[in-house]
Amino acid sequence: MNLKELSHQIQKKCSFLCVGLDTAIDKIPDFLKKEEDAVLQFNKKIIDATHHHCVAYKINTAFYEAGGSKGWDILKKTFDYIPNTIFKIADAKRGDIGNTAKQYAKAFFQWLGADAVTLSPYMGEDSIKPFLEYPGKWAILLGLTSNPGSKDFQLLKIENEYLFEKVIKISSQWGTAENTMYVVGATKPEHLALIRKIIPEHFLLVPGVGEQGGDLEKVMSAGKNSHGGLLINISRGIIYAGSGADFAEKAGEKAQEYRIQMERFL
Amino acid sequence: MNLKELSHQIQKKCSFLCVGLDTAIDKIPDFLKKEEDAVLQFNKKIIDATHHHCVAYKINTAFYEAGGSKGWDILKKTFDYIPNTIFKIADAKRGDIGNTAKQYAKAFFQWLGADAVTLSPYMGEDSIKPFLEYPGKWAILLGLTSNPGSKDFQLLKIENEYLFEKVIKISSQWGTAENTMYVVGATKPEHLALIRKIIPEHFLLVPGVGEQGGDLEKVMSAGKNSHGGLLINISRGIIYAGSGADFAEKAGEKAQEYRIQMERFL
Repeated sequence: MNLKELSHQIQKKCSFLCVGLDTAIDKIPDFLKKEEDAVLQFNKKIIDATHHHCVAYKINTAFYEAGGSKGWDILKKTFDYIPNTIFKIADAKRGDIGNTAKQYAKAFFQWLGADAVTLSPYMGEDSIKPFLEYPGKWAILLGLTSNPGSKDFQLLKIENEYLFEKVIKISSQWGTAENTMYVVGATKPEHLALIRKIIPEHFLLVPGVGEQGGDLEKVMSAGKNSHGGLLINISRGIIYAGSGADFAEKAGEKAQEYRIQMERFL
Repeated sequence: MNLKELSHQIQKKCSFLCVGLDTAIDKIPDFLKKEEDAVLQFNKKIIDATHHHCVAYKINTAFYEAGGSKGWDILKKTFDYIPNTIFKIADAKRGDIGNTAKQYAKAFFQWLGADAVTLSPYMGEDSIKPFLEYPGKWAILLGLTSNPGSKDFQLLKIENEYLFEKVIKISSQWGTAENTMYVVGATKPEHLALIRKIIPEHFLLVPGVGEQGGDLEKVMSAGKNSHGGLLINISRGIIYAGSGADFAEKAGEKAQEYRIQMERFL
């Protein structure tokens, strides 16, 4: 999905919402756990209930890899189930040398059919370039993450700049705002504004609203641009909104609530 | 496999050799390509021919992920085929927030049965800690990589120190020399000596000898310590040494050659 199509979907749905399918088997409703392919059944019902309210799904590969090759099979079936009008993100945070990066690009863009994959930029340009060679596909680079450990290195100062600023300045030269996005945690809205100055045109994928404490309004105000420019990810706050037979309905309601909060910023 | 057992294997085999199973379907001998599970057949024959000469195998997950869930199945079967006296590394370069890191640890240590997994430390302490909670298992953190892109960020200077030095100093406090190793590329032996001063006790996993131009003697001189302290990875230079019916024999001969070169440093 290219920039124009993604912006169009945001305008059409009045939504910046990305639903995170970080589905853990121990967190899904008890009555579903007995089912064959319980995680896939759960994901399908969540997708059915939420896809009118969101413009993207972010699927965290770790939760599927923990189930081994069977988990990968569920990952693939989940991707296949998502309507093609919705932007599909493999949240994989890969990063390796050029010839290995080519294999990862093949895995996520060709085999899995993702529109985008999250990547760690610390191994440098040759670790990212192979992902930029697929038309209509995106590399989403770690800019500033939302976790406590982000302070360990990303907030180191280098000649009056944070390391994350240097990383964004340098890596944004490798591609364009039409094939590169950045992960920027919602837990640090003051830094989000700083990042928006460095890359006014790029889309930002923003995790950390909800469970991790990020403030939606602050994120919207600091991050929005003329294309939309934001994908706001909410995972646990939506997919685990209910735990009974009506879990999907509850998830749909939560997704709608978030969408309505976002709508007025358009 | 703990530190004592790994050191023992190095002494017993007089070898620091790690064979990299970065098996790409288009690089295996033509006569094998027609076989069902061609990559697995290839890996098994390579393991049969090389396991007397090496102390570790490093399996690059990207090459298996490119084959989707079937690729993950081959990855698992390859791990299962490796004798238990040999150290098994999942070269996955993962790195994500704490609750996701737990899922990755489950994938690589529990499902796959790896002794160690390579990790990117840039998301900080909470992204690494879950891997350090498994007795006898190891986190192998990216220290300084061997690729051209390593200069983009790893060689940035912060107050007279390289970023990679800061990363190693800080992250080596999260665990110990009994559960943490570092990836240090062979293409930069002068930096390897610098790293050895910061972490005299830790094992270093060293890629980049052979195809990428690293010099084995320089690496051995700068990197060895009293436990052994080195796992020298060679991938393409061994596994693709031959392309005919005798490919495994050729790989075995190459592995033996490298082992003999290493032996005199013990």
